[in-house]
Amino acid sequence: MSTHDLGLSGDEVKALDRAHVFHSWSAQATLDPMAIERGEGSYVWDYDGNRYLDFGSQLVNVNIGHQHPKLVAAIQDQAARMCTIAPAVANDVRSEAARRISDVAPEKLTKVFFTNGGAEANEYAIRLAKGHTGRPKILTTYRSYHGATTGAIGLTGEPRRWANEPVTHGTVHFWGPYPYRSQFHSDSPEQETERALQHLRDVVMVEGPQTIAAIMLETVVGTNGVLVPPPGYLAGVREICDEHGIVMIADEVMSGFGRCGQWFAIDAWDVAPDLISFAKGVNSGYVPLGGVVIHEDIAASYDEKPFPGGLTYSGHPLACASAVASMRIFEEEEILGHVRRMAQDVYEPRLRELADRHPSVGDVRGIGAFWALELVRDRDTREPLVPFNATGADAAPMAQFAAACKQRGLLPFTHFNRTHVVPPCTTTRDEALEGIAILDEALKVADEHYTG
Amino acid sequence: MSTHDLGLSGDEVKALDRAHVFHSWSAQATLDPMAIERGEGSYVWDYDGNRYLDFGSQLVNVNIGHQHPKLVAAIQDQAARMCTIAPAVANDVRSEAARRISDVAPEKLTKVFFTNGGAEANEYAIRLAKGHTGRPKILTTYRSYHGATTGAIGLTGEPRRWANEPVTHGTVHFWGPYPYRSQFHSDSPEQETERALQHLRDVVMVEGPQTIAAIMLETVVGTNGVLVPPPGYLAGVREICDEHGIVMIADEVMSGFGRCGQWFAIDAWDVAPDLISFAKGVNSGYVPLGGVVIHEDIAASYDEKPFPGGLTYSGHPLACASAVASMRIFEEEEILGHVRRMAQDVYEPRLRELADRHPSVGDVRGIGAFWALELVRDRDTREPLVPFNATGADAAPMAQFAAACKQRGLLPFTHFNRTHVVPPCTTTRDEALEGIAILDEALKVADEHYTG
Ligand SMILES: Cc1ncc(COP(=O)(O)O)c(C=O)c1O
Ligand SMILES: Cc1ncc(COP(=O)(O)O)c(C=O)c1O
Repeated sequence: MSTHDLGLSGDEVKALDRAHVFHSWSAQATLDPMAIERGEGSYVWDYDGNRYLDFGSQLVNVNIGHQHPKLVAAIQDQAARMCTIAPAVANDVRSEAARRISDVAPEKLTKVFFTNGGAEANEYAIRLAKGHTGRPKILTTYRSYHGATTGAIGLTGEPRRWANEPVTHGTVHFWGPYPYRSQFHSDSPEQETERALQHLRDVVMVEGPQTIAAIMLETVVGTNGVLVPPPGYLAGVREICDEHGIVMIADEVMSGFGRCGQWFAIDAWDVAPDLISFAKGVNSGYVPLGGVVIHEDIAASYDEKPFPGGLTYSGHPLACASAVASMRIFEEEEILGHVRRMAQDVYEPRLRELADRHPSVGDVRGIGAFWALELVRDRDTREPLVPFNATGADAAPMAQFAAACKQRGLLPFTHFNRTHVVPPCTTTRDEALEGIAILDEALKVADEHYTG
Repeated sequence: MSTHDLGLSGDEVKALDRAHVFHSWSAQATLDPMAIERGEGSYVWDYDGNRYLDFGSQLVNVNIGHQHPKLVAAIQDQAARMCTIAPAVANDVRSEAARRISDVAPEKLTKVFFTNGGAEANEYAIRLAKGHTGRPKILTTYRSYHGATTGAIGLTGEPRRWANEPVTHGTVHFWGPYPYRSQFHSDSPEQETERALQHLRDVVMVEGPQTIAAIMLETVVGTNGVLVPPPGYLAGVREICDEHGIVMIADEVMSGFGRCGQWFAIDAWDVAPDLISFAKGVNSGYVPLGGVVIHEDIAASYDEKPFPGGLTYSGHPLACASAVASMRIFEEEEILGHVRRMAQDVYEPRLRELADRHPSVGDVRGIGAFWALELVRDRDTREPLVPFNATGADAAPMAQFAAACKQRGLLPFTHFNRTHVVPPCTTTRDEALEGIAILDEALKVADEHYTG
């Protein structure tokens, strides 16, 4: 029953894909997907033997790199022990995964509810918050992505929500901090924090604090720009929540589990939310897994009152075993420390050098292994290289840039007018430098559109 | 990095579970989960070495049985080849899984969108239907379960929705056929069909057909009673949909992939829906997987217009490889034929014998390896053994019945006043007879509450 013997060529894989696979977020007739045959560490290979450095960690999920041998072995071991069991029973690896995750979470976040992915994690986070507070509304930011189930796409504050409108009642979007394109006309990170918090306080006031179950935010906004919160912002949100009995939810689906050089990104700011949603990095997506880490007070709301949610694969043993193994590997190989060192020694200085050499690089920002280059046509006006949510011809400059990366053996993660530098957390110094050298070349394509 | 060496005792597993695992659908303080150490075929074992026949296939998902060696080997092989890759690329096992699923689906259902589980499958089914028709509403039945994300719990027509009210706009619930407790005062299955279809036509009329994107139903209603549609009902729904350009969605999360002795349950009635949602049996939940099989006309709606949905693990290679392997094993071991034979030779006749011996068995119904015994206090009034949605003391007779099964080494699947007989599709004649003999004993507990 080996799956090796499918024996398909790259062309056959593609042909079958076009015949039978319906793709996410795409006009199906326009697709020409590349066929990937294998991955190892920071690289993937296509069927023609071309090697690509994966500077996007796929969808920013393979934090441990591709096919980490110890993680693969752990999955194989667990497959032989027990693949699946119902959520209602007690299971060793599920218990152990929950213990390990609680152990690295902020104090009093002691319980874990497991899901299959990030959208579901956020679905359950808001259900927990609404049931705990008895309040109907959730505040989230514009320029956020929280997933694509009905609840999660309603939380989302970017264009992927549009085609799903109207969405669920009860989500209100506010503006988070974004110093490079400040909504608040600020001219320093400190002022951005102060004004963004004042804005949030005003939104809470006019929406009515007693109607607000939770404020949810991506600790570091991911797909929509690697927006690193300026000093004091997260602590300020915590204060607003405390003042009004509002649940603070950190969506760490993308930012957690190593991406920011911490188990939980929010540790970099020493703030403790009430709920943390996670997925991706928890096990690098080797098996679908997500979940919510829960403050004991919120869990206690459901001591006597039944929690009104559940799913067949909550706490799936194969998925939980891979999370346990991945966390062990992170410890054994000191991956969090590696990420922090790489940020300091390589990502930050070398990406800033790119900005020195390329006029089109308007802003460089990030933390850990989580960086963005924001590309512009003019550094003074900050006019983006391509318009917000551009498609087709409007988006051509970014498409050309991405093509230039691929030609040179790099898979970039591009979004709107940005390219993100989000390689695996295990990517070495040499690999990172190789990738940054490719970006250096490809950015010439962006520079050609510079008009400033 | 073996996970074997956790070396936890059953008590430690339970203690860690109670300390850190937040459970589905439960009042957390009242839980005393049993710890399961291993499973094989139709059985699971606790840490004290007690063996239990799994007459619920966990949550009606391990259709292939526990730890099928060929399926385990296929997962191990694929883990070594490639655990994960982004949905945007073409991948061999994803392509092959989609091809195989399309091949066994009704003609013209040629594309597959993959998700992580059943709730998400239904979320994507309704998104596809709404986008295709441009209409806002979905009709689903009372006594249905469609999952617990915001969209899926809104579709759900049973009490698990209540604590999540108010739910998304745009779901309207109607009554499906249920001959034993007819909403339509019918006295034959044929009359039930006729009247249920008239009811549905009336609901479509008063809701306005041009506002209805889809009619969604569980081909065989699962958790809410193994309600097998009477002759002609599904064909009648198909006609109503055709008449009004309404998408027909079959939720086969529980009923598909062998449970009814067919790849898709609806094949037993020779009706072709436009969308089929699936999960569970597709790979027996060895790796989380779900999806939607899509009619080519609906897929074509998204040829030029981007499909507005997606998830990080859509078409997950490890999950897809396990689906490919599971479908092969079903073929090699002729499991569909086995299920049909078991229905005819064992389940139907032997469960009817239970009804002959036990006054509390008011109705026996089912198909394939999907059966329910409906327990009553009185055969004439059909008063259920416990009230609808009973908890605590009200539910005691069913709790006593379930405890009697467990004492004798059987894990039953009970819901309200019913016990379902839903063992793995691979369960042998001898195992099934062993389980039915235990039910025979345990039903004496139910008979004690008989007052008729
Ligand atoms: C911050 C954030 N939240 C939620 C999600 C949704 O996760 P999933 O795709 O696993 O549903 C994503 C996915 O990119 C994400 O980045
Ligand atoms: C018919 C049906 N649909 C949907 C679901 C939800 O599936 P999941 O629990 O994988 O989200 C279930 C689960 O029992 C089901 O039986």
